Amino acid sequence: MSRYWSSLIDRLTPYIPGEQPKQQNVIKLNTNENPYPPSPMIKEAMIGEMDRLRLYPDPNADILKDAISKVYEVSRENIFVGGNGSDEILAHIFHGLLKHDLPILFPEITYSFYPVYCALYDITFEKIPLDGSFQIRLGDYIRPNGGIIFPNPNAPTGCIRPIEEIENLLKQNPDSIVVVDEAYIDFGGESAIPLTKKYENLLVVQTLSKSRSLAGLRVGFAIGSLPLIEALERVKNSFNSYPLDRLAIAGATASILDRNHFEKTRQKIIETREQLSKKLENLGFFVLPSKTNFLFARHPEHDGKRLHQMLRDKGILVRHFTDPKINQYLRITIGTEEECEILTKTLSSILKAG
Amino acid sequence: MSRYWSSLIDRLTPYIPGEQPKQQNVIKLNTNENPYPPSPMIKEAMIGEMDRLRLYPDPNADILKDAISKVYEVSRENIFVGGNGSDEILAHIFHGLLKHDLPILFPEITYSFYPVYCALYDITFEKIPLDGSFQIRLGDYIRPNGGIIFPNPNAPTGCIRPIEEIENLLKQNPDSIVVVDEAYIDFGGESAIPLTKKYENLLVVQTLSKSRSLAGLRVGFAIGSLPLIEALERVKNSFNSYPLDRLAIAGATASILDRNHFEKTRQKIIETREQLSKKLENLGFFVLPSKTNFLFARHPEHDGKRLHQMLRDKGILVRHFTDPKINQYLRITIGTEEECEILTKTLSSILKAG
Repeated sequence: MSRYWSSLIDRLTPYIPGEQPKQQNVIKLNTNENPYPPSPMIKEAMIGEMDRLRLYPDPNADILKDAISKVYEVSRENIFVGGNGSDEILAHIFHGLLKHDLPILFPEITYSFYPVYCALYDITFEKIPLDGSFQIRLGDYIRPNGGIIFPNPNAPTGCIRPIEEIENLLKQNPDSIVVVDEAYIDFGGESAIPLTKKYENLLVVQTLSKSRSLAGLRVGFAIGSLPLIEALERVKNSFNSYPLDRLAIAGATASILDRNHFEKTRQKIIETREQLSKKLENLGFFVLPSKTNFLFARHPEHDGKRLHQMLRDKGILVRHFTDPKINQYLRITIGTEEECEILTKTLSSILKAG
Repeated sequence: MSRYWSSLIDRLTPYIPGEQPKQQNVIKLNTNENPYPPSPMIKEAMIGEMDRLRLYPDPNADILKDAISKVYEVSRENIFVGGNGSDEILAHIFHGLLKHDLPILFPEITYSFYPVYCALYDITFEKIPLDGSFQIRLGDYIRPNGGIIFPNPNAPTGCIRPIEEIENLLKQNPDSIVVVDEAYIDFGGESAIPLTKKYENLLVVQTLSKSRSLAGLRVGFAIGSLPLIEALERVKNSFNSYPLDRLAIAGATASILDRNHFEKTRQKIIETREQLSKKLENLGFFVLPSKTNFLFARHPEHDGKRLHQMLRDKGILVRHFTDPKINQYLRITIGTEEECEILTKTLSSILKAG
């Protein structure tokens, strides 16, 4: 360490995102990107903003809030928009809403950025085990806590809890905040957004990186009660005044308003997922039930790490995690039908070769 | 306050940026935006990236680092790039490099975001007074400290310290970090970047918002020794993996590489500044010597707040600060020649009317 570092630097173990290969000739099923392009409406909107780049953007991104307000039927003042998919918003949530005397709770197997934020902001946490079939048991979260956060559907398992269970948790946990990270909700799940009108302690976070095909534009949003949104605004305005650039605001707004493209592409991904799931099962894989744009699957007779490497050698990237609890699994992003077809053929030949 | 808030929320007093009016028919000289458009090269670069927005950006923005490396003659590993002009980078610096037992030091009159970051990260600080002619006295910073940060040129005064004084400070203050915030350095100042090769505790921060006309794109960078850059990378990778979106990386890279446009527009602004300064002096204003794209000026017979309001009533926005030490001053961004002409004519008629 360096004497110039704040003491926090030593305790940081940064999040490692999935590989972004620079070569183009790979089938990239490792970071849950959408295989389809974003709404064609965004291009014109962004080009229209290019002549104003010398000027600061709207620090409140009002046109984007208006679009979200319209599509999600919530008031503008219940919306927070921010940069970097939902990651920067999650960081602000940990800093501004999840730092309390009691430890916060999140699933033992979940988005691996959560403990990284805890280190960054010196937040104590408890990991709550999943059940034997990799499901979150929300009943286990009803205990004294400084806040609760979980993705729904969970990542990297892909499994979802029904909205009734979430409402039950909110009823039984009125004294701390419950953050539902809905990065993957649009692939078949039911959003908790309507419950934000009823429960002051519920915050729902979404991203445009997955179902809106905008991983490269870095935009997300959160919806919740006025005090929760005010906390996020205060942190944001103490961190950077303009988290979304002009092109991101314009592109994200056009994307949110194009409901047809959104419906068409997410339905396509859901169909391909169901097909791929069956094909993997036919190859002998155990596949967790998914409501996301990825599958979490293991083969009882083939080592996960080895399969990952063999696919990689054949130009197909999937995600593998080293945590012993899940190191037999592959996390496979739903690509186009053609990509999934190549994947299953390649897996089939790998399995046959033993 | 809300019981769901982390305790920090209560102590935050967010930074308030200059107004971004939504109507178009104002002369906007209040937020130090560049009056000239960015390099024409950026458009094509950004449009070329639009077909890849479904994919995550390069988390390290290597092509941008390469461009900065080439133009500023420093190694890629000595460069940190980040989002939101230099604001997000400054936030990471406060968090990762300026939180120590001893208070950090910065000028009493300076960028008003510094104390906001201190509140956000619970950092103690001491404000060091300027001298009688609003100059930073670097000799006053040679005392026990947890780190030193100042803009050079300073804002909102516009005044610069010569590079020899900065090197002297570095020599006499080897035990803590010295951050030179060079947001305005390109308008006539000498950058401390070459000194980063000699002093391990020097970090220089720059933005593309001012001299590169890209306030709307939100990109900045820092240059310093390996341990300082590593600290920033650790914080960044514990906060968000992809701070720059695909269009920002492409646009910023093209901008950095277009040296002709950069030289032409900054020279133009310097010329206009010198002309405007003389004209304001002819109107009876006291104008601080500026090496930035703004002037800090007061009129001995006219109240600053009232002048600001009267200009506003006539459709000209300049910046006014309420701090009693500077509330007689106007901070006037250098616009086009035409805009500055309208400003001086309007001021002239206001002064004549008394």
